[in-house]
Formats: sequence, C-alpha cells, structure tokens
Amino acid sequence: MALKFELLKTHNKARLGKLHTKHGIVNTPAFMPVGTCGTVKAMLPESVASTGAEIILGNTYHLMLRPGADLVQKMGGLHKFMNWDKPILTDSGGFQVMSLQGLRKINEDGVSFKSHIDGKKFFLSPEESIGIQHKLDSNITMCFDECTPYPATFEVAKKSMQRSMRWAKRSKEAFVNRDGYGIFGIQQGSIFKELREESANALKEIGFDGYAIGGLAVGEGQEKMFEVLDYAPQMLPTDKPRYLMGVGKPDDIVGAVLRGVDMFDCVMPTRSGRTAQAFTEYGPINIRNARHKEDHRPVEEGCDCPLCSNYSRAYIHHLQKCNEILAVMLLSWHNIRYYERLMQGIRKALQEDKFDEFVEDFYKKQAMGDIEELK
Amino acid sequence: MALKFELLKTHNKARLGKLHTKHGIVNTPAFMPVGTCGTVKAMLPESVASTGAEIILGNTYHLMLRPGADLVQKMGGLHKFMNWDKPILTDSGGFQVMSLQGLRKINEDGVSFKSHIDGKKFFLSPEESIGIQHKLDSNITMCFDECTPYPATFEVAKKSMQRSMRWAKRSKEAFVNRDGYGIFGIQQGSIFKELREESANALKEIGFDGYAIGGLAVGEGQEKMFEVLDYAPQMLPTDKPRYLMGVGKPDDIVGAVLRGVDMFDCVMPTRSGRTAQAFTEYGPINIRNARHKEDHRPVEEGCDCPLCSNYSRAYIHHLQKCNEILAVMLLSWHNIRYYERLMQGIRKALQEDKFDEFVEDFYKKQAMGDIEELK
Repeated sequence: MALKFELLKTHNKARLGKLHTKHGIVNTPAFMPVGTCGTVKAMLPESVASTGAEIILGNTYHLMLRPGADLVQKMGGLHKFMNWDKPILTDSGGFQVMSLQGLRKINEDGVSFKSHIDGKKFFLSPEESIGIQHKLDSNITMCFDECTPYPATFEVAKKSMQRSMRWAKRSKEAFVNRDGYGIFGIQQGSIFKELREESANALKEIGFDGYAIGGLAVGEGQEKMFEVLDYAPQMLPTDKPRYLMGVGKPDDIVGAVLRGVDMFDCVMPTRSGRTAQAFTEYGPINIRNARHKEDHRPVEEGCDCPLCSNYSRAYIHHLQKCNEILAVMLLSWHNIRYYERLMQGIRKALQEDKFDEFVEDFYKKQAMGDIEELK
Repeated sequence: MALKFELLKTHNKARLGKLHTKHGIVNTPAFMPVGTCGTVKAMLPESVASTGAEIILGNTYHLMLRPGADLVQKMGGLHKFMNWDKPILTDSGGFQVMSLQGLRKINEDGVSFKSHIDGKKFFLSPEESIGIQHKLDSNITMCFDECTPYPATFEVAKKSMQRSMRWAKRSKEAFVNRDGYGIFGIQQGSIFKELREESANALKEIGFDGYAIGGLAVGEGQEKMFEVLDYAPQMLPTDKPRYLMGVGKPDDIVGAVLRGVDMFDCVMPTRSGRTAQAFTEYGPINIRNARHKEDHRPVEEGCDCPLCSNYSRAYIHHLQKCNEILAVMLLSWHNIRYYERLMQGIRKALQEDKFDEFVEDFYKKQAMGDIEELK
C-alpha cells in the first residue's frame, strides 16, 4: 500500500490513528504547521520538530512560482531543500489560483493564471499539479480541485463539485504510486448534504489513500461548518485518514475531532505570531495590550516552549512594541507548540479513554478567557 | 578590583587577554554582538552564545526609551529580562543623542533631547547615564561623552574632548563600585595626536577599569582610522582592556588588533543579515545575486553555523527573494558566527605564536574575494 493508516481506537466519532509514510509516522489527530514557501515562517525546522509537529504542509502555488518545482527537484526535493526530514503534505495549488480574481481563467482542462508576484503566465491542471507535487517529493499529494466559493447556490455547488470529481479522477491517474507516498481526494459540495454524499461516492469509486473535506472554513462560520461535519466525515471510508483543510482555531479543531476528523492545517499559529497574538489554554491574548507591560509571568503557565520557559510577558510585550523579529520568532514558536500540545492532549485523552473529560475541560478553560483579563 | 583584566601574552602590539566579570570571562580580543533593544536582532540568546560570543552590547539610549531603565531594573536587570546570563556592556547613550540633529540641546550639564519615537522629552547627563546603566545592571558601564563629529577643526575637537573629559570625571564619580562590574573611560580627540594624548592623560588621571577609543569609524575611512590607531592605543594603560567602539568590518578588526585593541562591537553582522550579505573567509557575498540560485554549496565551506551546516546557497537565495524571516535569522546567525570564528582564530594564533601567519592568510583570502565571483 502506498500509505498505511492504522485506526487504533475510536471514541464515538473521534479517532486515534497512525499514518505511515516514507519519512516517518504521523500520529493522528494531527496538526500540520504551514510552510508556504519552503519554511514555516520565522522558525527553524528543528524548532518546528521540537514542538511535536510530525508533518508540515507546503504550498504548490507558492513553490511553483518561487523557486520553481524543477529547482526543488534538482536540489533533492523539498525535504532536503528546506532541511525537514519528516513527512510533507502539499496542497494542489487549486485553492490559491481560484483566489486570483481577475488573474485567472478556468475551463475543463485547468486554470490559466498570472503570478501575483510578477504577472508571469502559468497553467495548472490536475496533471500539472500532480506533476509538480511529484517533483517536490511530497509524501501526501492533494488532488487538484475547485474550492467552491461560499455562499453558492445548489446548482453552482453541484457543477463545481462535479468538475472537481472529474479532476480528482485525472489527478489519481496522473499520480505515480510509490511506497510511503500517497494521494488524497477532496470532498466538495458546499453545505449541501446531497452533494457531499455524491462527492464522497465519486471519490470512493476512484479510491484514495486519504480523504480531505474541502470547501469549508471559507466564511460559512463555525456553526455551519459543524453542521456539515456532523455528517460529511462519516461519508468517507473509515479505514483512511480524513483531513479538514485550512482549519482552524483551537475550538474548531476540537469540534472537528469530535466529529471524526484526523488531520488539520492552518496558518493561524504562525500568522498570529506575526500579529502579537498568543494562544493559551485560557484563550488567546494579545501581547501588545498594555496590561502585559510589567507582567513577570510567562505568556502561558506550564507551557514548555522557549518563550514561556525563559521570558516574561513584559519582555515579549517590549519586543513587540519595538517590532523586533525575536517577538515573531518566539510567538510563532509558542503558538505552534500550543497547537501541538493540544493535539498531544487530544491523542492522550483518546488513548486513555478520557476524551469526554478532555473536551469538557478544554471548553471550560477556553470560555474562562485569560484569567488576568478579568482582574 | 571591580573588573580584573589579565594580559596573557603580547605579539608586537597585539594582545591576548582575559577579562573577568561577575557574569563570566571574556577572552580578548573579543567581538561583542550588538543587542540594541534588549535583543541581538533575529537571534535567540542561546544562539548568540553558541557562536562563541562571551559578551554583548546594549544601548542605553534605546533601552531608556523602551522599555525604560526602571522597568528593566524591576524585572531583575537586563541579563534576566533578555535571558542572557553572560557579561553585558552598555554604551552611555551619548553617541545616539548627539546624532539627534534638531532634536537635542547640549550644554555643560548634559543633553536635552526628544525621543525619535514619540517626541517625548528626556535628559541625559553623566549622572543620568551612569544611573541608567546601573539600573540595567550592566557589567561594563561606559562614560557619558560627546562623540566629536568628523571632520572637526583642531579647536572644535579640543573643546569637545575637554568637555568629554570633564564628563568622564563626573561619570566616574557617579559610578557605584561593585565586584565584577566596572566603568570604561573613552578617549576622544578626533584625528589629532596631541588631543588623543591629552585625553588619554586625563582619563588615566581619573582611573578606569578599561579604556575605549571613541570618535573613530565616523566617516574618516580605514586609512585615517589606522593612522590614529598607530598611536592612540599605546597612550592607554597596558594593564587594562582597550575597546574600539563601533568597529567594524573584519579587516578593520584585524588591523586594530595588530595595533593593540582588545574589544570591538559593531551592528554589521546582524545588519548585513537583514540585507542579504554574508561574510566569508573570502570576503562578503550578497546572497540575492542570481548566481546563487542553483548553487548546492553552503554559503561558506567549513563554517559550522546552522546556515552552512544544513542549507544550500540556493535555499537561502530563495528565502531572501521571498522576504522570509528565516533568511534574516540564518544570515544573522552565520555572520555573528563568522565574527566570533574570526576572534577565536585571532586568539588561537596569538596563543600559538602564529599571529603573523594568521594575518597574512587572512588578508590573502579576503583579497581573493569569493572564488565563485571569478568564474
């Protein structure tokens, strides 16, 4: 088998698993830090690994523009190029090129678009995207699809989903099987159960190493997203990993694990690190807030990241005020560590049959908010 | 004694020494990375220490504005605040406030100025500056002086130097003696030998733990600077460390060690790290240059820093093109490591009586330039 997935345990819909790749094991539920341009922003790869991250995500769109897939291949693949020897999942570029309003043209064959950097013309299709991901040496290739905009009428969502399913077939055909590498299909269908079902059936008919839930976290809000997640994951095979793309906030992730999702990716921890936001058990805090100015305490009590182990809130507040790069470095590190601690906590709770207690405790603390805000 | 200095060995004018402070030993000749706002830009303090740096410099002007000396003191001093437990030298703020053209007024008492950040009014004098450096818990306090602009007439340079000498006396008087802490005087006198002599005598009369050579590297060029260094260091006591402020490029440093200087500081390695310049044995290279685009080789063969150990020139070129923070992090780290390797090489050569060979080899390689530029 191209990618081996072990489903170790379930608790209601929540699942504990293990995904085996050529570059190592990914314990699920898993969070993948995003390394858009061949770097998880403001972090050394060894720092990313030290947080417990077992897999990262790379972006086909960004890497095909700079430095180009041929160059990455020539340099020995993305793992070697960026000094990350654990698994890598790449998206297909579809989501990014669809977002290039006014710069792209879609037809059945694929998408013509102009680079947002220099206007240079490119073309992406299922075959092109899979070929690029192959050159990058991605462990998990994603199908090239159309992320249906939200909101969409039933008819628009149906047409879009059906094209994505035809592209999924072409993607699978273009994928070269290798041991320890695999390709994931992507379920579409917007917020329509009937379309989600049709999409799931089309993907299962083709057969994939894993199944992603696409077209969510695009503005529909958590409530609507959870409504879809109440049924969509169960439409996908039990014996393969399920990946909710581009999600999300900590409580999105916990809610999605409860509904049977195994894998996540999101720019939030690193992006927040660049805008002075730190995640904590008691909800996010903004370190620019003047109340941190003379605070001796760490950002999060009990966190073992370098920021919380060695520095006060006062210091990171100061760095942030001075626009020092170290603020971004330390906050990004803390945030990724927070996410990976969350996933470790989820996995441990599932392992020990204490997931209900874990979830209750998680929501209780998040709802309390950072205690000092209440002083 | 407040600070103990051991002169271990000399080779012509060059000196090998050891400076003992409360926070540890500084082997000289030493290079001090600059941590302007309580951080060596884009580096964790443990990374700075890993380069071999044994002391860093902090800036009184920047720290008094943000976060303020009282806050740093309240947080346990600068070492604790910024998580750096090795020695710290602070400048006096004099150089920075003198540069605030139009925002400052100087009289015999001191300098009134407005913050470059928010226009808030401040006052610095010898007593104020020494008091701030005390609150920061700096191991090496610098006298508050006037850095004479270049060029200056003999008369202007003389008046300025004489005021600095009166301020040096007040600085010394304001300094609180503590074990493992000390205060350095600063020689002024522009490029006039007679004034340098008068200044040196005035400082020796007051008596300091170390002596800095100020007013150089302010636009006079290397040739004129070396002319002054041909005599100025020898005017200062043999049994105390000599510190050339704000210097410099690698060949400035080697030339100054040859002329009897023991300590250096410069923003160049970190600033260059933010502008894509990397120092190497064969001279600096600019990593943005297209010739690095597909280059598998490290930035500098034989360098043991993380950049050179784990990444190709192609990768750092790519990061730089994408304005990724990791480019700044890795280049700053490499450059500081380059400087500290240079100092380690100088000390080893002095220790082993091979300094002449070292210097010859250094200049030969620097003159060759990065070999690949010649292809």
